Amino acid sequence: MPAGDIRSAQAVIARVRERQPLVHCITAAVSMGLVADGLLASGARPLMTETLAEAPYLTTEADALVINLGTLSTDAAAAIPATVQAATAAAMPWVLDPTAIGTAPVRTPLAHRLLAFSPAIICANASEARALAGEAHRGRGADSTAQPAEARGAAELLAARTGGAVTVTGAVDLILTADRAGEVSFGDVLMSRVTGTGCLHTAIAAACAAVEEDPYTAAHAAATWLGAAGQRAGKVTRRPGTFRIALLDAIDEVKDEA
Amino acid sequence: MPAGDIRSAQAVIARVRERQPLVHCITAAVSMGLVADGLLASGARPLMTETLAEAPYLTTEADALVINLGTLSTDAAAAIPATVQAATAAAMPWVLDPTAIGTAPVRTPLAHRLLAFSPAIICANASEARALAGEAHRGRGADSTAQPAEARGAAELLAARTGGAVTVTGAVDLILTADRAGEVSFGDVLMSRVTGTGCLHTAIAAACAAVEEDPYTAAHAAATWLGAAGQRAGKVTRRPGTFRIALLDAIDEVKDEA
Amino acid sequence: MPAGDIRSAQAVIARVRERQPLVHCITAAVSMGLVADGLLASGARPLMTETLAEAPYLTTEADALVINLGTLSTDAAAAIPATVQAATAAAMPWVLDPTAIGTAPVRTPLAHRLLAFSPAIICANASEARALAGEAHRGRGADSTAQPAEARGAAELLAARTGGAVTVTGAVDLILTADRAGEVSFGDVLMSRVTGTGCLHTAIAAACAAVEEDPYTAAHAAATWLGAAGQRAGKVTRRPGTFRIALLDAIDEVKDEA
Repeated sequence: MPAGDIRSAQAVIARVRERQPLVHCITAAVSMGLVADGLLASGARPLMTETLAEAPYLTTEADALVINLGTLSTDAAAAIPATVQAATAAAMPWVLDPTAIGTAPVRTPLAHRLLAFSPAIICANASEARALAGEAHRGRGADSTAQPAEARGAAELLAARTGGAVTVTGAVDLILTADRAGEVSFGDVLMSRVTGTGCLHTAIAAACAAVEEDPYTAAHAAATWLGAAGQRAGKVTRRPGTFRIALLDAIDEVKDEA
Repeated sequence: MPAGDIRSAQAVIARVRERQPLVHCITAAVSMGLVADGLLASGARPLMTETLAEAPYLTTEADALVINLGTLSTDAAAAIPATVQAATAAAMPWVLDPTAIGTAPVRTPLAHRLLAFSPAIICANASEARALAGEAHRGRGADSTAQPAEARGAAELLAARTGGAVTVTGAVDLILTADRAGEVSFGDVLMSRVTGTGCLHTAIAAACAAVEEDPYTAAHAAATWLGAAGQRAGKVTRRPGTFRIALLDAIDEVKDEA
Repeated sequence: MPAGDIRSAQAVIARVRERQPLVHCITAAVSMGLVADGLLASGARPLMTETLAEAPYLTTEADALVINLGTLSTDAAAAIPATVQAATAAAMPWVLDPTAIGTAPVRTPLAHRLLAFSPAIICANASEARALAGEAHRGRGADSTAQPAEARGAAELLAARTGGAVTVTGAVDLILTADRAGEVSFGDVLMSRVTGTGCLHTAIAAACAAVEEDPYTAAHAAATWLGAAGQRAGKVTRRPGTFRIALLDAIDEVKDEA
């Protein structure tokens, strides 16, 4: 990784710890706890309301918004469009995670509609990125059967359309905007054995976007941070239960060294 | 335990790890994270959508379905009948956990209606099994005040009706079908001090049913797997917080030795 | 802390372990797992249903009720008034946690209406206590920007109105009723780095209220119990992932010594 990229990631991580951004998450029920604990470990603070009656209102108190379509409840599906609208009206950065789109009848068209609101960062696996760009390839559940490199064209198309960054997650994360591209190859295979590490990546990307205006720099810092934490946790344990805990500890521990 | 039972449990565990079945869970909100992490630790993969708009559609991509009535949200109550119908139409095995039925006004009649869709396995504590079989005895919250042996008649009646297996969970798990019966006495008392170990048992039973057609063999393998993991975790710690983590590690660690 | 207060906390903790009260919680989705695991660690048992169709019915089987407005789902907002009514009709103690009230359009008027049902204990941070008492000061997300001492007047007003106890949580917890007041200064700064420790405080207060009629004694015992556990956990680790686990272990470990 170029030394410039490392220095800019370090600067973003330091700013998250200093400013403690409030990150509003409408995110999968199954990993809500990990996402909130991971945000707290990063120095950011979570806000998790997802009803139409309150989410569009409360989001304006936050510093960034996460829209993750995993487990999409009826409450969340109803609240998301108005909440994204409120966030963009307030010029807040927001991050889209189009979990498990492809053929699912509610989340797939919803994700496509949300592109019009120009997310600062899209965080997706290769199958989801391709589906969001209109390619037919699809995954199974929340997993991807494609590699990040196979989604490069889709990611370029999405970045051109939103003007923001796209992170395609995988063993090697691909990060690009209309004019920059990079890779982050940290991480550990055990991350795929813990529910919600992808959701947490998305939430940390939002925390970074709250303190860093340049989408590429924010997206790259998030991938570096979580990847470095995963690598560190993988040295502590090789079992999934203890890995989840070591990952949270490592997010807190990773500071300027990332 | 007979040597034949041990060998068949070993074979099922090995197949779950090899085939990594996708298990769709409509399950209690309170333990959704443990269930998903436990499935990943077992080698299976979770899918947790519970809306009427998406669950019946997405379930057909899965290899098995879990219906657990704990915390039953309005979303879940609306989605369950159509999702079970879709799964059975696709000839997928499904597992029913009638959590806390007895007198509760929505889940109790719902559980009775679902029996007509012949779950491959019913996983219940003694109070729930008796209530599902139409006996008046009931528990309090998700706990049972009865022992598995007291529910043997109820379990036999349910197995005759569904043609599948019934697991009555407790200090000693009772497993039976119309023509077979066995017990699994592994486990650890600390399992009742962690939220959702019963829900996880049910989900692992579904992962086993995804790779093993015979309901008795699948149900027995699941009870053996979780019981062996609990026993192993109980040697690591005697406190509930660390036990939860050790249990997830142990599910991953238990392999052919179970 | 006066020796009498310590002795009465010890007695309440011992009674929770002995009687294992069933605590019905309508509580934030994000920390439901921690709350349930923390109740089990305390010796109490959780029940987490939150629909209008079942919660008012099932609550009458419980020994105490928690109403926590964090993440307030549409299901929960609809169920709360009828559930509180059913609990009070059954003379059950209930505890109110007015999470993140202030300007939020559903939870704020709901919290004010619930005061009429005289919660045995109100558990809130300083911003929430002031908002509930009708003062304009407010926090951001679930955090407070005010100190407990700044909410003393608000807490006195609330205690006078409900006839119960008010716990204002913070680095030092303030506990008072119409005629008594005390402080609990145990705890650890890492408690604010784990999602849901405030929600858990509220749930343990309900477990204590289930076995102790005097609201001050119950509220004081809960603050002492969780504070002592936090202090103990803080000696085990200085990282947030392992702290969460150590806290659950410590709730189980704290017994008569608190």
